[in-house]
Amino acid sequence: MIQRKLILFLFCIISLGLKAQYVYHNAEEFPLYGKISDNTELHFERLDKSLKDKVSRPYLWFLSKNTAGLAVRFKTNSKNLAFKWEVVNNATMNHMAPTGIKGLDLYCFKEGKWKFVNCARPSDNHKSEAVLSAQKEVAVSEYMVYLPLYDGIKQLEIGVDSLAFIADPEIESPRRDKSIVWYGTSIAQGGCVSRPGMAHTNILSRWLDCEIFNLGFSGNGQLDYEIAEFFVQSDASLFVLDCMPNVWEQKVYENLENFYNIIRAKHPTTPILFVQNPWFSLMEFDEGSYNSLVTKDKALDEVYAKIKNKDPNVYYHNSKDFLGDDGEATVDGIHYTDLGFHRCAEAMYPMLKKILYNK
Amino acid sequence: MIQRKLILFLFCIISLGLKAQYVYHNAEEFPLYGKISDNTELHFERLDKSLKDKVSRPYLWFLSKNTAGLAVRFKTNSKNLAFKWEVVNNATMNHMAPTGIKGLDLYCFKEGKWKFVNCARPSDNHKSEAVLSAQKEVAVSEYMVYLPLYDGIKQLEIGVDSLAFIADPEIESPRRDKSIVWYGTSIAQGGCVSRPGMAHTNILSRWLDCEIFNLGFSGNGQLDYEIAEFFVQSDASLFVLDCMPNVWEQKVYENLENFYNIIRAKHPTTPILFVQNPWFSLMEFDEGSYNSLVTKDKALDEVYAKIKNKDPNVYYHNSKDFLGDDGEATVDGIHYTDLGFHRCAEAMYPMLKKILYNK
Repeated sequence: MIQRKLILFLFCIISLGLKAQYVYHNAEEFPLYGKISDNTELHFERLDKSLKDKVSRPYLWFLSKNTAGLAVRFKTNSKNLAFKWEVVNNATMNHMAPTGIKGLDLYCFKEGKWKFVNCARPSDNHKSEAVLSAQKEVAVSEYMVYLPLYDGIKQLEIGVDSLAFIADPEIESPRRDKSIVWYGTSIAQGGCVSRPGMAHTNILSRWLDCEIFNLGFSGNGQLDYEIAEFFVQSDASLFVLDCMPNVWEQKVYENLENFYNIIRAKHPTTPILFVQNPWFSLMEFDEGSYNSLVTKDKALDEVYAKIKNKDPNVYYHNSKDFLGDDGEATVDGIHYTDLGFHRCAEAMYPMLKKILYNK
Repeated sequence: MIQRKLILFLFCIISLGLKAQYVYHNAEEFPLYGKISDNTELHFERLDKSLKDKVSRPYLWFLSKNTAGLAVRFKTNSKNLAFKWEVVNNATMNHMAPTGIKGLDLYCFKEGKWKFVNCARPSDNHKSEAVLSAQKEVAVSEYMVYLPLYDGIKQLEIGVDSLAFIADPEIESPRRDKSIVWYGTSIAQGGCVSRPGMAHTNILSRWLDCEIFNLGFSGNGQLDYEIAEFFVQSDASLFVLDCMPNVWEQKVYENLENFYNIIRAKHPTTPILFVQNPWFSLMEFDEGSYNSLVTKDKALDEVYAKIKNKDPNVYYHNSKDFLGDDGEATVDGIHYTDLGFHRCAEAMYPMLKKILYNK
């Protein structure tokens, strides 16, 4: 009996100890990257709340609450970092890992580069908690935590060791004076990476050291004018139009030039990059996909040629080399895996660097 | 009323039509790759049923029913391929996509190479169905379908277009006269790829054109003697011992040489490859992982040096280059993503090719 009481006593002490170990801070206190407007319903979301009743399809509004491309920056000397987060939908997908859908992804700035630390893995429920080892020794370090790609965040708290501090970052990286608006599809939204940091917009944000506003909307990168009217608020250095998989021949003819004109009305000379439909491996085995791609690529080429004729600040990225030549870089012949996003980032990096930094 | 009857009639016709579209065949009729013993409880599993009450831990037996590395081969002229499959556990993991855990992964032999066609995505339930486009035109082709990595298969049916045939393969690829037994951990079992074909044992089986017997057991590659006693039944061309993440310093000293001796007793000169613990990116941020790895690597080096001294047919693979140098190739600092497995396959391919083919 005495032994059982002792065990219970020790259990209480340990439980209290564990609970007291981390001091939690509301992540909304720290700088958020990847968000164009501060006028949003929740803190962590992508579209201005004035768009709620204006978007072309309700699902587009639903997707705008997915936190793809958003990241919180801070510095701390905590050896461990604890996270408590509550997601909006507790979404699941059969071809994407929960870590990518609704996990958090921690990076540390070391020796002039962003390095992957670890991923905070989600539970089966809306609420999750995770503790990550963030340093081998106590030292002040700069961190960035990427938010979920295919779910939203209602609340996020960052916990540090009880004797540690957490504060705003010292270094401005990714740079905010260079930024890209990336408009696109489920792929642009990060489908289907293993963890948020491996979406190509997040990879390229690290490699190019620039903020990227991810406006990828699964199935809904349909050249909707209200989205262009929204993102032109941003003083971006480059607009990437990467939505071909979600449009069709007629849509390209009808909407693409108007969409471009909305950007040009506000940003007369800012570079705009038109991205060809990725050369999906599926097309080698599926007649319908192949035919659809060929016709809409032709439409893109025609519209682009017409625009290029009058505008020296537009660019075109051929997609043939996005995924390598072995057909292995997707999970379903369409959506990129970490291998696919890494290859795509490598393929696009030179042109993006040239446009942003002229080198 | 007449209209409703007409709709019902059309619905029945369409339903019957859809059901009649594919003719299903039991996948157990076709050659299975990656299985050492035919004496198993279910057709699709990895360990001989005589081991059921002999394995060191019940969980090891549980994992032996995961179908990692198993693949069914056939040829058909069907444009579409339909799959119906029932899994054993309907497993879920928070850092691995359901497609990798319990999906099927279809490859086609084209121009002398295995090419990824598409992945059959699992449902939320034990039973799933999927239809994949397998060819743009009707043509006889050779296929391989990889089975789930982290679940078992109770039943698998392959459906072909109603006028198509399905039969045993014509080409023997992967070659059965060259084969590898790959003993290891959760990583060897394929954690955490997006789809089965991207586990490095499956990638390397395609690249090396050889059958690979996957004996990766998540958390359970603990140098258990009964597993070596089982796999020495195989007339393999190479034994790969890739279990370091699941053992610890003392275990290496106690078990590794005995484990090696069990292989040597049956296969006096067959090459044996000892694989170093992967250099996990986690170790840069986690003191405990780093220290553990350094001590057990030292133990491996000592035991290997002793064996190498008397045995010319043993090899050692340094793991420093398995995952590249950017720290990006895992989902959790440990388990490889598609990027990690692809890099690891690239790193190991030259040595494996040299051992298997002496070139």
